[in-house]
Amino acid sequence: MQLTGYEHLPPQRLDATFAALADPTRRAILARLATGEASVTELAGPFAMSQPAISKHLKVLERAGLISRGIDAQRRPRRLETTPLAEANQWLEGYRKIWESNFQRLDAVLEELKTEKKPRGRK
Amino acid sequence: MQLTGYEHLPPQRLDATFAALADPTRRAILARLATGEASVTELAGPFAMSQPAISKHLKVLERAGLISRGIDAQRRPRRLETTPLAEANQWLEGYRKIWESNFQRLDAVLEELKTEKKPRGRK
Repeated sequence: MQLTGYEHLPPQRLDATFAALADPTRRAILARLATGEASVTELAGPFAMSQPAISKHLKVLERAGLISRGIDAQRRPRRLETTPLAEANQWLEGYRKIWESNFQRLDAVLEELKTEKKPRGRK
Repeated sequence: MQLTGYEHLPPQRLDATFAALADPTRRAILARLATGEASVTELAGPFAMSQPAISKHLKVLERAGLISRGIDAQRRPRRLETTPLAEANQWLEGYRKIWESNFQRLDAVLEELKTEKKPRGRK
């Protein structure tokens, strides 16, 4: 099977994106920013974490290009950047055919089991 | 915007999946296994890497549930497991609406620029 559609991506970008996504706090920050811009204080709010700890996570997200800073110089709000998410999704889509055919195979096995259970007509 | 469809996933699973995917060698191993089962020796072949180094990567992939071992006790071939890929894809799909609306907004801006350039009819 040929996997296509992600070869043009620089591998370091995917490394940074996947590494940034491998943390529940960072994924929660992205989920919060999906509802709109937020300052560091606003982002730190829902987490039992110090502002420096949140800032560390924000730096990882920023380096991966997953967030950027809004124009308000006072609040310096963070904003979600979706291009790396679309790229990571594109890489995973290369495997969709395989997982879908695996699921179909499982369905076929279940269907076969159902058919075997059906009582046969007697002659 | 509400993100839905991934809340039921244990966060540790997504952590392990994304961390395992954050390495080009591990992604290349998965791409190789997408074409069929392979032994450790066969997997080490295309990489300028020792077998222990490859084994380390395989352990990370195995712990994340991205690969399993085939039934041949001699070759112990590794096999791709796609469920974690489908789960990671599902998490990313929660953001699809946002990146698609961003792309649409960009399209709209480009369209507007084109319209502005059109010469106006004179009276």
